[in-house]
Amino acid sequence: MLRVPYADLDRALHRAMLHLGLRGDRAALCARLFAETTRDGVYTHGLDRFPRFAAMVANGSIDLAAEPTCVAAAAALERWDGHLGPGNLNAYAAIERAIELARQHGLGGVALANTNHWMRGGSYGWLAAESGLFAICWTNTLANLPAWGAASPTLGNNPLVVAIPRPDGAHVVLDMAVSQFSYGTISAYAARGQQLPVPGGYDAAAIYPPTPPPSRPRSARWPIGYWKGSGLSLVLDLLAAMLSGGLATHQLPRDPARESGLSQIFLAIDPSNFAARPVLDRIANGILDSLRAAVPSIPPAPVRYPASRRSACAKRTPPRRSRRS
Amino acid sequence: MLRVPYADLDRALHRAMLHLGLRGDRAALCARLFAETTRDGVYTHGLDRFPRFAAMVANGSIDLAAEPTCVAAAAALERWDGHLGPGNLNAYAAIERAIELARQHGLGGVALANTNHWMRGGSYGWLAAESGLFAICWTNTLANLPAWGAASPTLGNNPLVVAIPRPDGAHVVLDMAVSQFSYGTISAYAARGQQLPVPGGYDAAAIYPPTPPPSRPRSARWPIGYWKGSGLSLVLDLLAAMLSGGLATHQLPRDPARESGLSQIFLAIDPSNFAARPVLDRIANGILDSLRAAVPSIPPAPVRYPASRRSACAKRTPPRRSRRS
Repeated sequence: MLRVPYADLDRALHRAMLHLGLRGDRAALCARLFAETTRDGVYTHGLDRFPRFAAMVANGSIDLAAEPTCVAAAAALERWDGHLGPGNLNAYAAIERAIELARQHGLGGVALANTNHWMRGGSYGWLAAESGLFAICWTNTLANLPAWGAASPTLGNNPLVVAIPRPDGAHVVLDMAVSQFSYGTISAYAARGQQLPVPGGYDAAAIYPPTPPPSRPRSARWPIGYWKGSGLSLVLDLLAAMLSGGLATHQLPRDPARESGLSQIFLAIDPSNFAARPVLDRIANGILDSLRAAVPSIPPAPVRYPASRRSACAKRTPPRRSRRS
Repeated sequence: MLRVPYADLDRALHRAMLHLGLRGDRAALCARLFAETTRDGVYTHGLDRFPRFAAMVANGSIDLAAEPTCVAAAAALERWDGHLGPGNLNAYAAIERAIELARQHGLGGVALANTNHWMRGGSYGWLAAESGLFAICWTNTLANLPAWGAASPTLGNNPLVVAIPRPDGAHVVLDMAVSQFSYGTISAYAARGQQLPVPGGYDAAAIYPPTPPPSRPRSARWPIGYWKGSGLSLVLDLLAAMLSGGLATHQLPRDPARESGLSQIFLAIDPSNFAARPVLDRIANGILDSLRAAVPSIPPAPVRYPASRRSACAKRTPPRRSRRS
């Protein structure tokens, strides 16, 4: 693996964004979101994803000039339209607004229609946690998972983000798709000639229930928990499309290079009016201490929690604080 | 299976609640929540659960006289204390309050500490949906799942409820625990001498990763999606305990007959200020139609969605409308 200083990566991405046609502040923020994702070790959604981002600008799926606007409001809940602008800039604006609303009302929600792939969903959870707030965010996606009982994909893998603020940047940020495996992971196992560690999807025949479940799917990938993730994916899509008034999974282009018009939800929670920070921290510490004290499986493996590995990646370079506009 | 008229079941449960010591209105509501659960086919959490409810009253885990109170508020977000009262009555009061808050602020949240098992979590999603609102609710539980990489249970199966309102009572209500299988399902397969259809947990040795994964777990049950459900369970517990100021999974009694002091979250969403009902219904219909049109697996099985089977159970008896207090 090649190591480059974070500042060099950020600068190169910034130049690339300007070259594509983004303006000053937006180019800098878009570049930083890509660069931080790579810095944090989520390689698939950082620099590695820039070529597809550029291709989607070229094919008209992403409108670099478009900025999100609020189209309707009801106190703590707002509807925004992303106008098919860059997905990470739209999502950043949406979680910033949800944070503002939560500071005012305790809860804040933004339902965002007509947006694009948000790249690393965790970015928006990190921003909320850096701001001292809790967040729950999700996006729908093109159809890439079969519903349980179906052979053809009708559900999205609809990534879900849950963020819990903790001191010194040690936030807990869950950032997971509803699919059991990403295409990247399945390809990596296949390239090494290995079976997946647990069942990952249907074989070519889509026989239900498969006996034994295939561990190297050739056809559709399964949702987590089989029928359970199937239901979870469905309700995330229903909430995203209905609350935002935007498109649902079944209406999105099936070509990943033209997957545009997504619907997303950003919920932020601010209990600071009645919950003292040290008390919250003690509760979280107790939960994480009990996790670390668990009897390990055989062979012993450290019990991890969402984002517990991020600090190891991020500390290789001096961290940059999130800037608030 | 023995069939009894719904009214008889409700009346018998009502008498039983009065006999236990619940007062008039509360006895009637508690009985109705149990009876409706059985009517809807969720047998494990209706009448079948009454003996444990009665035992927990007898052993002091449930205080029949305790009513929930609001202990702190910040506009759309409130903290309530359940004072160890009956879990279904506490949860009913909490979702009713979340609905009121959402009608006022667009979003409404109640974080409830010191409560008891809410019986069927779906009941609170149904109430929100019957009121025309969306809801997301969850509870923590005693430790009954290992974190991924652990052999001993440190996580709860933390049931999650997501409700989407639709016309004519055809709501979509997801009501799922984060465990892949319930103990009841595992026992039922074992009693029939059948293997589970998909891997369900560790074998006695808790070897990680098991090859092949055991389909009849003798020891700990797995969360849905293995490492993914492990992360999901953790963040649900963090949110529930931190926002409510109540107990976390690791602090709850390990004896199911004394599992008391739970923490729960009730979020309600009311977009009616800006989203017209017929438009919402069209979006939901499009999503469910696309699901029904999916190519079936082999052999063909109807593609279902959360709560799509409920109407078949409920229509055996004349449905009773939810009463609002």
